[in-house]
Amino acid sequence: MTALDATLRSAFDAYKRLVDEAEPLLTALDERSGDGDFGANLQGGLSLAASHAEGDSGSDAWAALAKVFLDDVGGTSGPLFGLLFRQLARAAAMGATLPAVLADGTAAGLAAIQRVGEAQLGDRTLVDALAPAVEVLRTGGTLATAVTAAVDGAIATRELVARRGRASYVGERAVGSPDPGAVGIALMFTAFGRSAGEDVEQGLDRLLQASASAEESTDAATDALAPDSAVAIAAAHRARRPLAGLPLTQRADLLDQLAATLEEHSQELVAIAEDETHLSTGRLSGEVVRTAFQLRMFADLVRDGGFLDARIDPADPSWPVAPRPELRRSLRPVGPVLVFAASNFPFAFSVLGGDTASALGAGNPVVVKAHPGHPRLSRRVAELAITALAAAGAPEGIFALIEGQDEAVAALRDPRIAAAAFTGSIAGGRALFDIAQSRPVPIPFYGELGSSNPVFVTPAADADDAEEIAAGFIASFTLGAGQFCTKPGTLFVPSGSAVLTALERSPLPDPAPLLNDHILTGFRRRLTELIEAPGVTRLRSVDDPFADVPGPILLRTHGDQVLANPARYLDECFGPAALVVEYGSDDQLLRLAEVFDGQLTATVFGTEADSPRTLLDTLAERAGRLLWCQWPTGVAVTDAQQHGGPYPASTASQTTSVGTAAIVRFLRPVALQGFPGRLLPAELRDA
Amino acid sequence: MTALDATLRSAFDAYKRLVDEAEPLLTALDERSGDGDFGANLQGGLSLAASHAEGDSGSDAWAALAKVFLDDVGGTSGPLFGLLFRQLARAAAMGATLPAVLADGTAAGLAAIQRVGEAQLGDRTLVDALAPAVEVLRTGGTLATAVTAAVDGAIATRELVARRGRASYVGERAVGSPDPGAVGIALMFTAFGRSAGEDVEQGLDRLLQASASAEESTDAATDALAPDSAVAIAAAHRARRPLAGLPLTQRADLLDQLAATLEEHSQELVAIAEDETHLSTGRLSGEVVRTAFQLRMFADLVRDGGFLDARIDPADPSWPVAPRPELRRSLRPVGPVLVFAASNFPFAFSVLGGDTASALGAGNPVVVKAHPGHPRLSRRVAELAITALAAAGAPEGIFALIEGQDEAVAALRDPRIAAAAFTGSIAGGRALFDIAQSRPVPIPFYGELGSSNPVFVTPAADADDAEEIAAGFIASFTLGAGQFCTKPGTLFVPSGSAVLTALERSPLPDPAPLLNDHILTGFRRRLTELIEAPGVTRLRSVDDPFADVPGPILLRTHGDQVLANPARYLDECFGPAALVVEYGSDDQLLRLAEVFDGQLTATVFGTEADSPRTLLDTLAERAGRLLWCQWPTGVAVTDAQQHGGPYPASTASQTTSVGTAAIVRFLRPVALQGFPGRLLPAELRDA
Repeated sequence: MTALDATLRSAFDAYKRLVDEAEPLLTALDERSGDGDFGANLQGGLSLAASHAEGDSGSDAWAALAKVFLDDVGGTSGPLFGLLFRQLARAAAMGATLPAVLADGTAAGLAAIQRVGEAQLGDRTLVDALAPAVEVLRTGGTLATAVTAAVDGAIATRELVARRGRASYVGERAVGSPDPGAVGIALMFTAFGRSAGEDVEQGLDRLLQASASAEESTDAATDALAPDSAVAIAAAHRARRPLAGLPLTQRADLLDQLAATLEEHSQELVAIAEDETHLSTGRLSGEVVRTAFQLRMFADLVRDGGFLDARIDPADPSWPVAPRPELRRSLRPVGPVLVFAASNFPFAFSVLGGDTASALGAGNPVVVKAHPGHPRLSRRVAELAITALAAAGAPEGIFALIEGQDEAVAALRDPRIAAAAFTGSIAGGRALFDIAQSRPVPIPFYGELGSSNPVFVTPAADADDAEEIAAGFIASFTLGAGQFCTKPGTLFVPSGSAVLTALERSPLPDPAPLLNDHILTGFRRRLTELIEAPGVTRLRSVDDPFADVPGPILLRTHGDQVLANPARYLDECFGPAALVVEYGSDDQLLRLAEVFDGQLTATVFGTEADSPRTLLDTLAERAGRLLWCQWPTGVAVTDAQQHGGPYPASTASQTTSVGTAAIVRFLRPVALQGFPGRLLPAELRDA
Repeated sequence: MTALDATLRSAFDAYKRLVDEAEPLLTALDERSGDGDFGANLQGGLSLAASHAEGDSGSDAWAALAKVFLDDVGGTSGPLFGLLFRQLARAAAMGATLPAVLADGTAAGLAAIQRVGEAQLGDRTLVDALAPAVEVLRTGGTLATAVTAAVDGAIATRELVARRGRASYVGERAVGSPDPGAVGIALMFTAFGRSAGEDVEQGLDRLLQASASAEESTDAATDALAPDSAVAIAAAHRARRPLAGLPLTQRADLLDQLAATLEEHSQELVAIAEDETHLSTGRLSGEVVRTAFQLRMFADLVRDGGFLDARIDPADPSWPVAPRPELRRSLRPVGPVLVFAASNFPFAFSVLGGDTASALGAGNPVVVKAHPGHPRLSRRVAELAITALAAAGAPEGIFALIEGQDEAVAALRDPRIAAAAFTGSIAGGRALFDIAQSRPVPIPFYGELGSSNPVFVTPAADADDAEEIAAGFIASFTLGAGQFCTKPGTLFVPSGSAVLTALERSPLPDPAPLLNDHILTGFRRRLTELIEAPGVTRLRSVDDPFADVPGPILLRTHGDQVLANPARYLDECFGPAALVVEYGSDDQLLRLAEVFDGQLTATVFGTEADSPRTLLDTLAERAGRLLWCQWPTGVAVTDAQQHGGPYPASTASQTTSVGTAAIVRFLRPVALQGFPGRLLPAELRDA
């Protein structure tokens, strides 16, 4: 082996050692900008080449490295590193001195990489470390200067936004930490410098420190509100097994702690919420009580353990078909869950609402996307939650808040997110559903979207209970200024209805402000469509329904009109408006029921004499909850609640987002066959 | 009112009556070629116009009709009919005689329709009835001749394949029945003829008969194998409530009948299956037993009723937050289910396999798409099933067989299909999953796709049980010529493994034919990729693995190699081949476990001394069933079975396709609030 060959071999070995040491840093960097496999790929490729090249000379070792990276290493970066290593190996086979080998090899390597990847300086790729070093060598600079140039180039990528390569799709998310590919190049130059006896240690320290700061900020994600979804998700992913491994009683205690924190800070939180949402103190205080109750309900459910659906089939040698082995099956957490908070219930369907409570209760870390309708409240609740969880000794990273639609979409695409839950509009929910389903690995997306919650009054009920039905309807459709997802938006009454007459005389409540301008704009647009639809007239209104604080309004039309173009009349109108539809016959009433899309609720007002079975069958095919002579607003949090219906009421009509059954959304069955008792989870051991 | 106006009014009224009578026929026609709403739209529009135009003159009535269809009627055809009616109304306002009004109005109407819709004669649209009648009137023909031309034109659309309009996406499906829009036009001309005193009754009879034959063939769908998915689905949709309404014991009896039929014809069916699939008599006879057992297991489950998950929350006025109403919740059938049969289990995962049994057991009509690998067997089993169900008094239409990929895709897009189940390849399953999720109304798609079912041998087990593990592995990966979805495709053994040494000495079974040429081609392609992957060598083989009857083959490589590019080594190879991977350390074993995608099963062979918890946690995140010292082939049909894992093993990892838990895939919760006992389903009544 020549002296040059020995130096090249020593550089190869030094590179392998440096990457072995830096692998966790490289992985952390790549978790911020890519799919987190770069560290493992670089280390794996070097290990494989080292095993192929055991005892080989330096140029052969670099040739083996090139072959492995071109043939075997996956990911985007594998082949690019392979191109560089191949040019280095060629230069090594022909070169006379280390500076000549490096100058020729890296220049040719850079040219090859840019031909394939078209990356330019400043694009936040490995080129940002490679090109400056190539330039130093090309212009006769020393190896030590080239190493420094590579290290500085790599560190400087901290300031760059990706335009090429894997990191480009995360955009600004990765800013603040260096590009892992560039760090990999800087480590290679450092290895060459070290093997040539240069003092590279100071530069190496700087490089590792710059890389480690990214890892630290990842670690710090659980200590503060995290604006960066990649950081929050990396922490949630690391926390998944520690959380799943907690005894159920400890997991339940965490939920109780969150409930206690909410109640303890109720006054402060309600004040912020009032300011941001225009909802009343009374309503908001009640919502805090409900949200805390819900957290404790899931805590009790978790303590009980029955939700794990443990099933044990003993072995049975006489089982038909074939002898049956012992099988034990229970439900396990799915992994980190992304929750999209809603605007209309700033506590119960927001940061610590039902989705968060059920996902955490199931044993999954949760990343909540704050609703922009109440940002300060969201941040304060998250801050309190993180503090309470830390004080209770929860694993770090099990809860985080992120903000902004771009962050949320990036999170929804992140391979470490295992499920998502959403409450909001049909358009917004469908767009997110489509993203979740078109991922390389699709995930469950539990979206609760829109519903107009029709109410059908039979002729007998109309005759018997007109005053009561009219009063109840007005109270229900105007509750919370009509901003409930279960607001009854359409009331069907028989021709010549006494309910209609009663409604004409009934007082409507005073105008009330809507949650925010976005909702006000949507209300005006949909109300205009309704008012302008053929055959629609105004039944009653209070003040101006188009005012900034809109007055409640009741419209009326006839069933014939609705049947000619159902969607124009029946789509949801979020806000204090409703439509009364006169039907001409029982047959028409059935046809009106048949034209509905999926609904959260459908209601029938009948009497003891009524048995409208066909109507009820029709409605049961279209709604998740049917009501008899009661109003749909108000969703009790219980075992038998069902809040969700066929699309578009929900994207997953087989599940509920309210009540104890909501927890199964975030669980997945695993069967164990033939396991000894010591390796079984607690719920599957013999009693 | 002039005489002309009176005739026009009488034509309007006659048209309304004709459409009222023909509405069911029009709906049946549109169910074959569109979304089934044409009859209701046409009837609804006429009714609405009639109510607006009560007492109006003829020209005003047609003007009202035009307005309603242009403004109010939905669907594609509403506006087109509106354009025609508007030109007729204009001509009526100016014309002197009925022939002149009709000639001018229909010619202008046709021109307007063709400007908007660009439909030509022969495109299977309303133009095919309208244009011939316009031509007759333009050239001075009589009204009677024009009526006949419209009727003949409408009837002749039976022979046309749609190129325009709503029906174009169903292509040849609609051939054999007339276009509903064209029939609607012919009815209008018939109305004009009748009001002018022409004898139109014979033509009307012919028109209604031609239309009714489509309805009859829809009705006949349950009496024969149905090659037309629209007919099968229409029948299934009509059968959904009668089936859901059967008492559970009667529903269970139907499953028992199917089991009995299978057993009764076992010999005949096995003979067909043997011919079509190359599987052995013994294996196929066993599969019939298993399939019949599975049907009876679901029958027992249905009789028991526990699967309905009935939950009753009594009212509680002191419930925290707010008084709680009474809520009762149970699971209901989702609606017609589409089942894609698999090739490798021609009974157990085919026409009457687990998907069909669980969907029927849940109370849903089932449409099975036959697998082309065993068409004669599929048809014979379907024929027997339809006969047995009819003999048992099942509602018509609850079971049908369709064939062909185009039919299946049309069925998957049909709005009446509520869920789908599939067993097959990753590529095929993902394509269907994407279709199901991108529908206007997405539906659950339960796909069981691919899995390589890794097996990990700890160093202690390798030392203690080498011979037994080697023999068991060979038996498991070659079972059924390696065509099990739970075939162990990868075996991980420690460096210097005794299992490896034992495998070198162990006999492999003889070559066995694969199911069909498609699978043989896929096996050769994937085996070539494996053999050509870097670092892969042949451990053992018997005869030629690339022969038409391929010999089993075992390959080997090293963990370093696998980690550099996991997918190349670890993706499923369906057929009698497997890969043995030597790992270098416990740490490398963990890293190898981490690179796996979702799996149906993962297996660990350890000893009493082993507690590889991190390995088991890693595998539990990736597989639906974990095994300890047992082989994954053989999937017992029991309560605790889990057959399904994270994607791509399954598209719905929260469910299983084998075992009693499979039934929940086809159920949906509905909560009832405040209902009197007489209106509750049996499972929710007070005891």
